[in-house]
Amino acid sequence: MTKTLVMVRHGQSQWNLANKFTGWVDVDLSEKGVEEAIEAGKKIKEAGIVFDHAHTSILKRAIKTCNYVLEYSDQMFVPVEKSWRLNERHYGALQGLNKAETAEKYGDEQVHIWRRSYDTLPPLLSEEEMEKQYHLKRYAKLPKDVVPAAENLKITLERALPYYFDHIAPQLLKDEVVLVAAHGNSLRALAKHIEKISDDDIMGLEIPTGQPLVYELDNDLNMIKKYYL
Amino acid sequence: MTKTLVMVRHGQSQWNLANKFTGWVDVDLSEKGVEEAIEAGKKIKEAGIVFDHAHTSILKRAIKTCNYVLEYSDQMFVPVEKSWRLNERHYGALQGLNKAETAEKYGDEQVHIWRRSYDTLPPLLSEEEMEKQYHLKRYAKLPKDVVPAAENLKITLERALPYYFDHIAPQLLKDEVVLVAAHGNSLRALAKHIEKISDDDIMGLEIPTGQPLVYELDNDLNMIKKYYL
Repeated sequence: MTKTLVMVRHGQSQWNLANKFTGWVDVDLSEKGVEEAIEAGKKIKEAGIVFDHAHTSILKRAIKTCNYVLEYSDQMFVPVEKSWRLNERHYGALQGLNKAETAEKYGDEQVHIWRRSYDTLPPLLSEEEMEKQYHLKRYAKLPKDVVPAAENLKITLERALPYYFDHIAPQLLKDEVVLVAAHGNSLRALAKHIEKISDDDIMGLEIPTGQPLVYELDNDLNMIKKYYL
Repeated sequence: MTKTLVMVRHGQSQWNLANKFTGWVDVDLSEKGVEEAIEAGKKIKEAGIVFDHAHTSILKRAIKTCNYVLEYSDQMFVPVEKSWRLNERHYGALQGLNKAETAEKYGDEQVHIWRRSYDTLPPLLSEEEMEKQYHLKRYAKLPKDVVPAAENLKITLERALPYYFDHIAPQLLKDEVVLVAAHGNSLRALAKHIEKISDDDIMGLEIPTGQPLVYELDNDLNMIKKYYL
């Protein structure tokens, strides 16, 4: 039996609007971002997709997207699991900086590498900022060793895939229909695995915001096809 | 160490407005109900209450209340568990009927008994309605034996307390702070147990909508005190 996994990337956030690096900073959706999430829910309802489980990050722009998708597809009762492993890529010391100003300071090429290289790390969060991050309630119960000071996509994938294998894949293998509402880079990491995309090609994959991406998978969770609603 | 349990009863729903018996019908919050939930969240934030876990029913008026409370107290990352065991009391064949019309048809006294007796059952859902209820996705995975055709408060308590004992109490015993966002009667059932209220007195307990009710409990989960925010 074909397995169904649906991904929704959260829509515009307040810092997308302000052209800032966001990463793990817990920025809210903009009004447009809310509309995108509602639209995604309506499309899923029209397509008649009924979920057994939903997964999201512990950042509110993804959680709210998840909630709106479930609300507007009339299935708020679906259990939702939240994990830091589905968080956006951690942007280190770039978090909170304006993208244009960063390009002026470090040069376009450097910023392009930080944004587009699979395995180059952006500048790390300072020790002081790390202390603050540890003390956020949401990360306080995690071993310090897993809380990053910055991530590239490779590291994002290495911490997101265990969640896929332990939480999402077992549900798919039981023929349960699964929603993942998350971020550009955590979804890109899952897509890289599912679609078997190379390290060189993965940064070229752009998952559009608010467009439900449906994967049909075989019994071994290999991709049969994918399409957007 | 004192244990903290906070209950929030969902605010006005669209059928409260229409003066209808609601029960397990999945009616949305009214605009006023949304405002009540947001206010509850703000009060919890002001009080500095930080949750480790949240629990709600599988009815959207409670789920949305839970979501708004977490959003407006800045803790959307808190894990939320949803269970039919926290649903509103099932109102049987009265569900969907206008309360005034029901009183005209059956008499004020009969309706008063259905609403206020601890252990009198309202008229049962018809077999046809039961079939429809079983086929709702949200109940389809439950054994038919636990899905009621109508409930009094006694039955509501008997199905809500196992959830308290298995899911909520163990968290309290670990000193975790717990939110329960639910319904007039499922919260009344938990309150009856926690406050050790008699069968005769319990229907006199009215938990106001949208007012966070804080219980402080001792190591054996006996009530030390309760107050509203």
